[in-house]
Amino acid sequence: MVRIALGQLNTTVGDLEGNVDRMTEWAVRATDAEADLVCFPELAVTGYPPEDLVLRPEFVQDNLEALATLARRTAEGCAVLTGFIDRGDRGLHNAAALLHGGEVVARYHKAKLPNYGVFDERRYFEPGTDACIVEIGGARLGVSVCEDAWAPGPPFDAYARDRTPLIVNINGSPYHRGKTSERLDVCAARARETGAWIVYVNAVGGQDELVFDGGSMLVDPSGGLVHHATVFTEDLLVVDLVALHGGRTWAVEDGREREPWPQGAEEVYRALALGLRDYARKNGFREVLVGLSGGIDSALVATLAADAIGADVVRAVAMPSPYSSHESLEDARDLATRLGIRLDLVPIEAVYRAYLDTLAPSFEGSAQDVTEENIQARIRGNILMALSNKFGGLVLATGNKSEYAVGYSTLYGDMAGGFAPIKDVPKTLVYDLARWRNARDEGTAPIPQRVIDKPPSAELRPNQRDTDSLPPYEELDPIVEGYVEDDRGPEELIASGFDAETVRRVVGLIDRAEYKRRQAAPGIKITPRAFGRDRRMPITNRYRRNALG
Amino acid sequence: MVRIALGQLNTTVGDLEGNVDRMTEWAVRATDAEADLVCFPELAVTGYPPEDLVLRPEFVQDNLEALATLARRTAEGCAVLTGFIDRGDRGLHNAAALLHGGEVVARYHKAKLPNYGVFDERRYFEPGTDACIVEIGGARLGVSVCEDAWAPGPPFDAYARDRTPLIVNINGSPYHRGKTSERLDVCAARARETGAWIVYVNAVGGQDELVFDGGSMLVDPSGGLVHHATVFTEDLLVVDLVALHGGRTWAVEDGREREPWPQGAEEVYRALALGLRDYARKNGFREVLVGLSGGIDSALVATLAADAIGADVVRAVAMPSPYSSHESLEDARDLATRLGIRLDLVPIEAVYRAYLDTLAPSFEGSAQDVTEENIQARIRGNILMALSNKFGGLVLATGNKSEYAVGYSTLYGDMAGGFAPIKDVPKTLVYDLARWRNARDEGTAPIPQRVIDKPPSAELRPNQRDTDSLPPYEELDPIVEGYVEDDRGPEELIASGFDAETVRRVVGLIDRAEYKRRQAAPGIKITPRAFGRDRRMPITNRYRRNALG
Repeated sequence: MVRIALGQLNTTVGDLEGNVDRMTEWAVRATDAEADLVCFPELAVTGYPPEDLVLRPEFVQDNLEALATLARRTAEGCAVLTGFIDRGDRGLHNAAALLHGGEVVARYHKAKLPNYGVFDERRYFEPGTDACIVEIGGARLGVSVCEDAWAPGPPFDAYARDRTPLIVNINGSPYHRGKTSERLDVCAARARETGAWIVYVNAVGGQDELVFDGGSMLVDPSGGLVHHATVFTEDLLVVDLVALHGGRTWAVEDGREREPWPQGAEEVYRALALGLRDYARKNGFREVLVGLSGGIDSALVATLAADAIGADVVRAVAMPSPYSSHESLEDARDLATRLGIRLDLVPIEAVYRAYLDTLAPSFEGSAQDVTEENIQARIRGNILMALSNKFGGLVLATGNKSEYAVGYSTLYGDMAGGFAPIKDVPKTLVYDLARWRNARDEGTAPIPQRVIDKPPSAELRPNQRDTDSLPPYEELDPIVEGYVEDDRGPEELIASGFDAETVRRVVGLIDRAEYKRRQAAPGIKITPRAFGRDRRMPITNRYRRNALG
Repeated sequence: MVRIALGQLNTTVGDLEGNVDRMTEWAVRATDAEADLVCFPELAVTGYPPEDLVLRPEFVQDNLEALATLARRTAEGCAVLTGFIDRGDRGLHNAAALLHGGEVVARYHKAKLPNYGVFDERRYFEPGTDACIVEIGGARLGVSVCEDAWAPGPPFDAYARDRTPLIVNINGSPYHRGKTSERLDVCAARARETGAWIVYVNAVGGQDELVFDGGSMLVDPSGGLVHHATVFTEDLLVVDLVALHGGRTWAVEDGREREPWPQGAEEVYRALALGLRDYARKNGFREVLVGLSGGIDSALVATLAADAIGADVVRAVAMPSPYSSHESLEDARDLATRLGIRLDLVPIEAVYRAYLDTLAPSFEGSAQDVTEENIQARIRGNILMALSNKFGGLVLATGNKSEYAVGYSTLYGDMAGGFAPIKDVPKTLVYDLARWRNARDEGTAPIPQRVIDKPPSAELRPNQRDTDSLPPYEELDPIVEGYVEDDRGPEELIASGFDAETVRRVVGLIDRAEYKRRQAAPGIKITPRAFGRDRRMPITNRYRRNALG
């Protein structure tokens, strides 16, 4: 029998000392649970992804010293498998080390380096060439790192030839909707090909735009899910492999059976809460600031913030303009009361009038247009930033993915803020999340029903509606998804049944808004392709599917 | 004898039709000059770098159709070598095609794919495996693309074995200071290793953060520079290779001998002018807006804009606050007069007072601090953006690299704008550029001497000086360069002689300002590492060289 602890840890990028401290503690817990081995996530020593810190020789050296420290500190306990940056003859490697008796007893270099989506691993690392089989508690065990498991080939082919009965895969695998079932499919495929048990260990926690959702698991050689850790929280799952070929296994230490993984709106909501909490916590913010318009986006963001960080540290600000409706202010107040968050009232009319007076000589002879709307949005951005500068809170931008896509947002206005929690959430999903959250608990729903029911409006001119400028979100969102997430061009979208004029209009808006998105705050990736590091479009771009030939 | 035209073209990303039109015209010019072959830059069909457009199947298909169109249109003329995206069995390739008689007669796939710095080519392309030797005018010629030439190995080793007398290298090689001499070193090394003549063809023009500087050239087998094209402008250089092994060659068509490449401040200034002009032009802006503070940064940016785009389309705005000195406004007026640009006066005091009044209840009991300074900066940002929204001009942010590095700048304030021309220019170099520009022409120097002589100040509180918050720029800039461009850690910097306390302070400021830079406007890369796509640091980052062990 071999007993393995899956250390689903929340590390912090760059915090070598903190990460090593935490692994040391968890190694003691695993040893106390009589585990033979505890496994930590990919690059757990440095946190993942360390990005261009890897280019700094001092950082790599410090990471090697941190690994040696971890080996020394865990010398008396069970074996430890963890991720670190190794320095080899050909360059740096995304690597795993097996620590035992105070020494590094084996090293493995990741063979497949992802360089798509949010990943830039070819920028930093050389691929490894050798498989790595170690012996733990009398059992042979193959080592692999993350992407290695996503396709057949090295090192899994070597483990199949060798009939290695057990393969550990350590991960820094970021979340998007439905990713847990993709991962299970991948692990099941590798298990069936190799005939091995797969111990899949993922990181958990937020890091800038990414959320690592955990969902560590044990998969049997037939591809069945035998045990799973939690998602969105740290977890130490200890499993026994009694008879490696077909025997039963179970989770020990806490004896607790984990809840099934959440699906749908709950899954997204928990991802957003973790991403927001960790961005605030890891960057040292004790308070967040949210402008409450009375609309659904800011209502959802305020609710998320209260859930994620605590109602007592959410400071909401209502900033009515001459065009704000009485109902909107009422709804903002109602929401704040329901959530138990502080609400400040800072009317913007006096500042707005001062801008109009100051600009009157320059604007003479020009008609009122979107300029005046943007001025209002930017006054609000400035007020939030001023409160942030004065009192130190993190300003949350409240825009959703549909708005960021088509540029229905004001740069330095409603786009202002240090973090944009729902930046990757399409508007239709914003409503789903609000409804799910309202239905979640017994008692008072946090978001007033009127906020959900009223037609969306920026309230920057009289009787404005989003649908004055945009197609209804039920039409808009599938086009955004097709164009942005699936790389489907306008011709293909039209051929698949979308209205031609709407497609051309929306695609044009998306292309032209690239310059705004380039200056957007980071937000949490929840779809297969988010704006940010995940999507690298040129601003200067004349591609409009010209007719040629 | 073989006659080759080096087509140093300014393409536009995504403008397949425009790029093909322009290559067609130049192929006619080359044919008229009796060239056997005209060579265009890397990915000239799509423009470089096309970034995530490459992920769209429609885009790749359109690029293949554009290549076929170019082949048909140039069927009657000389052979054409150009860059395009090829679709192969293993994926996409960064490729070169030889077009002749209306057909694609040869294809080459780039063997070395850069994936460092600003380059993400492994994200899109598979490396090629085969060399490509073609026959032109009776001479054998090897084909290569950009990075292929930067180290020994494929395909150059194959051309050496084959004794191919002539190797063409087509490029999209972006500028940084001194890059022309690095390129010549590289070409000379490949020439000596292979014993071949090297025809090096580079792109020219601005694309978002990058400037392609041209500097196409012919290098002989001993590594000597025989002919060179211009830098920073389009050029069609036609060269004869009379006797390939050792014979003399010369430039024809225009018979003009090109100027030596500029060095130092002139080189940087011309790179900035091209980058700014092309960003404005390719994105359809007819006017630019600059806030003139009376300081050196905005003076340099306004001068650059007037030189690059024309004094008649530069609209300067002076926005004095209660803390602006009388001299600053005088200097702004003086500069505008010297440049012949329009200057609007928009005092911000009334708006500033309105903000203070509006925020008074929220700020009650707090002391005045940097908040009030940022409010002033953000009012200016909003006024420029309002003028841009109303009249359509491109707002230029005027911050320099030293400020962006240490965060001595206000997000949504002086950082507001669509483009930041001197974002990668350290403050000490800002002065060098101003002095060089003042000395360039006879007659009136554009930048008033007092602007150069006075101590730098943000003028956001009484008697403020940059040195109240920062070390003198002569001390600051070398630390920024060491830390940002050279990846030297604080320990290493201190060991090399920098003051320990200053290094730790500056490095701390640089790390903490990452969140601001993430929301900065794009600017022109002129150093080996610019902020932007070139430097990918995490915001959430606890690395502070902790003591461990």
